[in-house]
Amino acid sequence: MADTSIVLTDVASGVWLDSWSLCGADGPTLAGSGDWSINKRTLRGGLSDGVDIVEVNNGAFSIQVLPTRGMGLWKADYLGTQLGWNSPVSMPVNPAYVNQESRDGLGWLSGFNELLCRCGLAFNGPPGVDVRVDSDGNSSETPTTLHGHIANTPAHHVEVKIDDDGPGVISVTGIVDEASMFGSHLQLKSTLTTAAGSNRLTITDEITNLSAGAAELELLYHTNFGRPFLEAGARFVAAVRELAPRNQRAADGIEDWQTFGPPKTGFEEQVYFLEPATDENGNTIAMLHNAAGDLGVSLSFNVAQLPCFSIWKNTQAEADGFVTGLEPSTDFPNPRTFEREQQRIVTLPAGGSHVAELQIAVHNTADSVAETQRAISAIQGDLAPIVHGKPHARFSPIDD
Amino acid sequence: MADTSIVLTDVASGVWLDSWSLCGADGPTLAGSGDWSINKRTLRGGLSDGVDIVEVNNGAFSIQVLPTRGMGLWKADYLGTQLGWNSPVSMPVNPAYVNQESRDGLGWLSGFNELLCRCGLAFNGPPGVDVRVDSDGNSSETPTTLHGHIANTPAHHVEVKIDDDGPGVISVTGIVDEASMFGSHLQLKSTLTTAAGSNRLTITDEITNLSAGAAELELLYHTNFGRPFLEAGARFVAAVRELAPRNQRAADGIEDWQTFGPPKTGFEEQVYFLEPATDENGNTIAMLHNAAGDLGVSLSFNVAQLPCFSIWKNTQAEADGFVTGLEPSTDFPNPRTFEREQQRIVTLPAGGSHVAELQIAVHNTADSVAETQRAISAIQGDLAPIVHGKPHARFSPIDD
Amino acid sequence: MADTSIVLTDVASGVWLDSWSLCGADGPTLAGSGDWSINKRTLRGGLSDGVDIVEVNNGAFSIQVLPTRGMGLWKADYLGTQLGWNSPVSMPVNPAYVNQESRDGLGWLSGFNELLCRCGLAFNGPPGVDVRVDSDGNSSETPTTLHGHIANTPAHHVEVKIDDDGPGVISVTGIVDEASMFGSHLQLKSTLTTAAGSNRLTITDEITNLSAGAAELELLYHTNFGRPFLEAGARFVAAVRELAPRNQRAADGIEDWQTFGPPKTGFEEQVYFLEPATDENGNTIAMLHNAAGDLGVSLSFNVAQLPCFSIWKNTQAEADGFVTGLEPSTDFPNPRTFEREQQRIVTLPAGGSHVAELQIAVHNTADSVAETQRAISAIQGDLAPIVHGKPHARFSPIDD
Repeated sequence: MADTSIVLTDVASGVWLDSWSLCGADGPTLAGSGDWSINKRTLRGGLSDGVDIVEVNNGAFSIQVLPTRGMGLWKADYLGTQLGWNSPVSMPVNPAYVNQESRDGLGWLSGFNELLCRCGLAFNGPPGVDVRVDSDGNSSETPTTLHGHIANTPAHHVEVKIDDDGPGVISVTGIVDEASMFGSHLQLKSTLTTAAGSNRLTITDEITNLSAGAAELELLYHTNFGRPFLEAGARFVAAVRELAPRNQRAADGIEDWQTFGPPKTGFEEQVYFLEPATDENGNTIAMLHNAAGDLGVSLSFNVAQLPCFSIWKNTQAEADGFVTGLEPSTDFPNPRTFEREQQRIVTLPAGGSHVAELQIAVHNTADSVAETQRAISAIQGDLAPIVHGKPHARFSPIDD
Repeated sequence: MADTSIVLTDVASGVWLDSWSLCGADGPTLAGSGDWSINKRTLRGGLSDGVDIVEVNNGAFSIQVLPTRGMGLWKADYLGTQLGWNSPVSMPVNPAYVNQESRDGLGWLSGFNELLCRCGLAFNGPPGVDVRVDSDGNSSETPTTLHGHIANTPAHHVEVKIDDDGPGVISVTGIVDEASMFGSHLQLKSTLTTAAGSNRLTITDEITNLSAGAAELELLYHTNFGRPFLEAGARFVAAVRELAPRNQRAADGIEDWQTFGPPKTGFEEQVYFLEPATDENGNTIAMLHNAAGDLGVSLSFNVAQLPCFSIWKNTQAEADGFVTGLEPSTDFPNPRTFEREQQRIVTLPAGGSHVAELQIAVHNTADSVAETQRAISAIQGDLAPIVHGKPHARFSPIDD
Repeated sequence: MADTSIVLTDVASGVWLDSWSLCGADGPTLAGSGDWSINKRTLRGGLSDGVDIVEVNNGAFSIQVLPTRGMGLWKADYLGTQLGWNSPVSMPVNPAYVNQESRDGLGWLSGFNELLCRCGLAFNGPPGVDVRVDSDGNSSETPTTLHGHIANTPAHHVEVKIDDDGPGVISVTGIVDEASMFGSHLQLKSTLTTAAGSNRLTITDEITNLSAGAAELELLYHTNFGRPFLEAGARFVAAVRELAPRNQRAADGIEDWQTFGPPKTGFEEQVYFLEPATDENGNTIAMLHNAAGDLGVSLSFNVAQLPCFSIWKNTQAEADGFVTGLEPSTDFPNPRTFEREQQRIVTLPAGGSHVAELQIAVHNTADSVAETQRAISAIQGDLAPIVHGKPHARFSPIDD
């Protein structure tokens, strides 16, 4: 058994493969599938100029990774079913063209269109000012922009690996530094792994505080799905310990928090914050499935790593982004000041790390969806979920 | 008769020709001129790194198109006479290096140097905040930056076409998306056309609202001329229905609004807003000609498409940008709130389009200039132009 | 005797060498060393994508020039001793990824990691608003961001030259325009020169005001050193006429202003402003040497060109940027309004230039360090330095 490793990008040593590919016919033999391939290309032109894409195809599940956009996932395809959504922003945007300061700190939205987009690392949530008071009573203010910088920071090291052990496993690792002098110094080492022939991908992220002082970390996985998973009558299923609507707008739809309506022009987003119920090891599963219940996508994670979860219902018209976000995270995407009060921010000591693992699986039969539903029910067990009908002060700043 | 079509850029399908050319000797035979050529190249280095230029030469008139800068026109040359001007910003600037938020929203000026630069599409005019009150009395605020985003948005699709019908026609089409999640979703399809051997180019723009809701459109063609068209004694000639100085500074020069002075260090710009008189079909012509009256450049357009026109007199020292802007547009470049009050904003329904056509012709003999002058006089006919000596509340927010 | 000249970049004429090299074996023979080389490469990937580096190696001293970052110096190496420092920002950053407006105008810090980084040209110092009142009493406001734009402006012309006269001299010249319509129009022509086999490099900068009106210039050379020059017990030696701490924090350390402590987590920076004493020609020398006194780096300049000098003590933990800045300049890096009041801003008439020359030499023996110390003492002569114990109103705005 052997590993094959190829460095695609390493800025420090001057490695850059503008385009590159390897496939089952030319590379190692993987037991799980002979049709695997890895393809790296670089987009040119438009707002995508310079964006690199690493497409990992395990023979059944093909995933497009965007090193230029903080190792986000652009789109994926499992046996012909597309994962992702159609944003008004149609192609991946080079962060050089994203001004996060624009629109009063909402500029991030001009590059937002991925299947999976990380929010963080120093902060996520809305733009504003984070006011922090230290132990001496001195306050300092940090301006924040929507969802932080990590999705708009290119990886400086990218490497693919093929391991022929078992079914055979393909992985892509990227290293992204969110760093500034007199600022945060957080390093993301992100690895996407998928077994040959599998319906599943795993993201394993390690975020390290490279500063000599303690640092705050906020990390949210903004995974986003449109059709065919999302449609009128689609359902969200999860093991829930406690859930609250983010604001009055979400509270108005609390009765139907688990179901989705059809695309509706001008639909105003609804967000629900939840704390998952888990098995005895802290593991939990959340799933979105279609109306017929024969197609679903599930997220598996551990609340020791990702204790919070947001459901973003944004069933706008197709043209404006018909999408729902399923978002496991370390914190809720509120102002950082609020999250600090709620003690939901991860504090990393000097040199300390936080690891988060997230599995995404596609279920393309009614049986597979039902099986996942049973697994979620088993996690819920006898625990009665607490579902607040109104915004709750522990989950979000209350609307006035 | 046949068309030849070449895609130079298509981000979605991965097409990018870094450099490419075709000329009369190798391509289709065009009756109008055997010396036509099309040349595409990509600039490297400086602030121009990554900017692509498509130079269309019809055998007499050579025009440089900038897909990277929203299909603006960099410079043109008609039989040795240059069209354009010398900005302090000497070369085309990649929008990646333009921070439109800088200088309190005036950052656009750090990339401004083209012969033709579009302002829009969601807004043009000065930076500020657009306050909009909806039918329920709820107000929303949108921050705006100088002249909007379109000139700093690269085309994601670029295509050239050679049609050997008649004299033979060369065209370049680009598609530019001004889009953001939770923002506008306007698509510009711009085609520049010129007949082989002609003294004329035509811009045909179609702007489509790809959103599911109605959208506002503001579009202005900032066409800019320096020497040899602009000089002391140069004149602007147009068919005028009504005209007003933008502010007191412009009012101070109202007597001479049609003539230009020599370059003057520290000259403070003067802007005149006019509504053109037209023929029975809504067509009109505006011309700038030199002092001797033997060299001119004219703009032809239709007020159903472009009802407004601004004259920007900026006869500063040569080193600081000796230039005049002749600017047909859908609206006047005032704060969007004001233009909405004046009902000059185009509202596009979902899926709706606005088409604008603009012809630019060079007149390089006294006869040709005189002929254009007669055409303008014929359009004016007996209509007495209303020329306001002071700023007028219908044209611009009155200075306090 | 002959010159060899190679243009690496010239945007206007379309010259760009993506990678290129020449060395003693293939190029002109230089008496000072046979091991010289020049190597140009372009970084790809990460935040460095598109950054070009011109590495000049004189056979003993190797210097990496960054045309993309305003002709800054990335790092240098003299006979195995590295000059520079380790910023949390580990690799050179393409200015396309630097938003200077972010963090309330501190965005410059996200690209700050060079051995030599220019601050200016229109302004340097902290972010804020420069209020200027003209002779008629009209005030205008200019927003400023930290340390101005020049370090984030790519050179549009880059040329190397090898001159076999004497020991042989290698030089790199870059031209950088800091220009905007209705803004400043300053052009930096920067030449780095080093003799084959030498321990010395010379920067010769000419800044020209290309505007038709007078312009203000602020220029500071932010030269930055970490280990092995900086360490606990390292000393700064200079000929001093007058010196003041920038603020109370610096005043607290005034007794030890010439010495450096060990890396200390959370160390808050201390800045001292000084006006150098000079020889009869205005020349002066400043040196940083290690604790043992057997390794030093000196800066030589003339106060007619660079009358001000700042010492930035930032002995933070290694991970956060253990560094000191030795900064000769035309002004102190205070708000421009304050510097104007103190009459320290260079005013360039239309077409006028300011030339500044800065030599950096490495002293890698105790003898060489001692010799430099003697030279500094000779410059100081009998002049008693005035060292203010508290911030002084002539040097910096007094803390309230």
